[in-house]
Amino acid sequence: MSARTVKLAVIPGDGIGPEVVAEGLKVLAAVAPRHGLALDTTEYELGARRWHATGETLPDSVEEELRQHEAILLGAVGDPTVPSGVLERGLLLRLRFNFSHYVNLRPVRLYPGVTTPLAGVAPEDVDMLVVREGTEGPYAGMGGVLRRGTPGEIATQDSVNTRFGVERVVRYAFAKAAERPRRKLTLVHKDNVLTYAGELWQRVVREVGAEYPQVEVDYLHVDAATMFFVTQPRRFDVVVTDNLFGDIITDLGAAVAGGIGLAASGNINPEADFPSMFEPVHGSAPDIAGQGKADPTATILSAALMLDHLGYAEAAAQVEQAVAEDLQARAKDGGSRSTVQIGDDIAQRVAEQG
Amino acid sequence: MSARTVKLAVIPGDGIGPEVVAEGLKVLAAVAPRHGLALDTTEYELGARRWHATGETLPDSVEEELRQHEAILLGAVGDPTVPSGVLERGLLLRLRFNFSHYVNLRPVRLYPGVTTPLAGVAPEDVDMLVVREGTEGPYAGMGGVLRRGTPGEIATQDSVNTRFGVERVVRYAFAKAAERPRRKLTLVHKDNVLTYAGELWQRVVREVGAEYPQVEVDYLHVDAATMFFVTQPRRFDVVVTDNLFGDIITDLGAAVAGGIGLAASGNINPEADFPSMFEPVHGSAPDIAGQGKADPTATILSAALMLDHLGYAEAAAQVEQAVAEDLQARAKDGGSRSTVQIGDDIAQRVAEQG
Ligand SMILES: CC(C)[C@H](C(=O)O)[C@@H](O)C(=O)O
Ligand SMILES: CC(C)[C@H](C(=O)O)[C@@H](O)C(=O)O
Repeated sequence: MSARTVKLAVIPGDGIGPEVVAEGLKVLAAVAPRHGLALDTTEYELGARRWHATGETLPDSVEEELRQHEAILLGAVGDPTVPSGVLERGLLLRLRFNFSHYVNLRPVRLYPGVTTPLAGVAPEDVDMLVVREGTEGPYAGMGGVLRRGTPGEIATQDSVNTRFGVERVVRYAFAKAAERPRRKLTLVHKDNVLTYAGELWQRVVREVGAEYPQVEVDYLHVDAATMFFVTQPRRFDVVVTDNLFGDIITDLGAAVAGGIGLAASGNINPEADFPSMFEPVHGSAPDIAGQGKADPTATILSAALMLDHLGYAEAAAQVEQAVAEDLQARAKDGGSRSTVQIGDDIAQRVAEQG
Repeated sequence: MSARTVKLAVIPGDGIGPEVVAEGLKVLAAVAPRHGLALDTTEYELGARRWHATGETLPDSVEEELRQHEAILLGAVGDPTVPSGVLERGLLLRLRFNFSHYVNLRPVRLYPGVTTPLAGVAPEDVDMLVVREGTEGPYAGMGGVLRRGTPGEIATQDSVNTRFGVERVVRYAFAKAAERPRRKLTLVHKDNVLTYAGELWQRVVREVGAEYPQVEVDYLHVDAATMFFVTQPRRFDVVVTDNLFGDIITDLGAAVAGGIGLAASGNINPEADFPSMFEPVHGSAPDIAGQGKADPTATILSAALMLDHLGYAEAAAQVEQAVAEDLQARAKDGGSRSTVQIGDDIAQRVAEQG
């Protein structure tokens, strides 16, 4: 097994961010060496604290340094004292956009032992992979305000959808669907109202789908999709959707799969022209920060997505397996462990694996 | 009690539309005379059948005739053979926009006896009123396509938000919240990403809220809101939100409250400058059309919203009461009645009321 060193940038961020990231790194440290992987980590202080201290969200020089890494592990950024949008647009979305993270990958899986708010739903009913577009749509930040503060004020918000941008994420989604046992892909959009964008998405799915005759293609309006998420989650295998719809349905998916404490995500640039970035779906949760109460599982599962992206599928599977075991054990012990204890236990399970 | 005649336009539409509308009219016929209300109904054939036959969605002359009515009762329009968007934009949204239905009112209530997909959730946990903006936002239909069919294709979709449009619906929502026991209003948006529109919505809620010190104001990002719909529906009383977010969360709300067969809506012009339009949230369900299987309850509850809008609050309450009783009876009898039987039974209960 040839050893390889991967340069990993770490952005712990704010609130519970540093706490959960520490556990993610702990588990990585337990699994990586066994697969000949050395992680050379550099920590970057970005987020609310830096913004308060310096007014900076992401200095160009830091962006340039981050770019020199193979991957980024991010905890969570933001706190209630930073105006809404400042860190989102200035840091998080800037990284997703500038590093061309056009695949925002969000598995939605109900692990055995985890409680879902849905009655009568079992783990085998919830196993989907949401492929959310990450670099355009309503997230492009286009639009503006005219006559602010007057009765004639108008604020616009423009969704930008390109053939280039839609096709690359749709291709990724089809490739994933073709690899999975059910081979089903559901496009989620709202093409009966957002007719310009919707028609483009539909046409691209049809065209790329012609290359994947083995993949069954389905379409749902986003409103109907949220309904089926709670009434028939089994309906979904791979889901491909735009940036905003993906944001919405993956939070709902996280709730269905037992909560935001478990939801992982990867902001992926499949060509590896830029570092991909892995982060839990949850935010910085300032209300529980510093109390050792945060669940690091979402970060640990995000680290597993990172391992997979870096080419260490087996290591990723080991982490997932350890998490799955830990979640089942939790169902029994009542779940009163601290952030650090959960991290320790999962790292331990990884270390004990065959 | 002085008698009044209300001119009601009826658009049965396609699929199950005519079936459920017939039951809505039946219940109206049972309740209206007891409150001195005479309904003078005129039926309009609009929808997929007309479009197939003539290519028309809504001729100007028909729009003009509809305008001469006080209210419209609509079943559902569309079928899979009509291209997506044709009837939505050409008929449904055209009516909502041209008749200034800026309040899209959607109660989300779990009636006793109704099964929700959520574990451990009781009727008292789900009682909200979603006030969805109905005449602007991403539904405005603005945007376009450039270089269609080429690799350089771009499709845009523009959300338009005006001070005028946001303020009027926010005022309506505050007034409703002030009338309800919990007096809570939650704004749902995504202001950390859709910063231009989000800031306008936030500012208007803050300004109008200053006139309602007795109303507690909360804010949730739309992604988090979908999560709380399934984990803590109790959190919500009145919800105010934009056209697209409202579309999404009310379908989810319908699922939580026992399904789309029960979800009512009113497209309301509060000033009554134009006829308001009442319709079930569900679509035309061509798969079960003509089989007497459709649940007319959503249409009957929409008719109750209409009675309330027309100033017959007591009649509306009687219909709701009859529906509530019917739903409890259903929990016992297993629910195998036909569309017509459900309509008969609810009309009967209304007739038997004190
Ligand atoms: C923080 C916010 C910008 C972000 C998003 O909307 O994408 C978050 O909700 C997420 O899902 O990662
Ligand atoms: C049919 C469609 C245009 C409509 C909407 O999106 O508003 C429907 O989903 C609804 O919620 O009434």
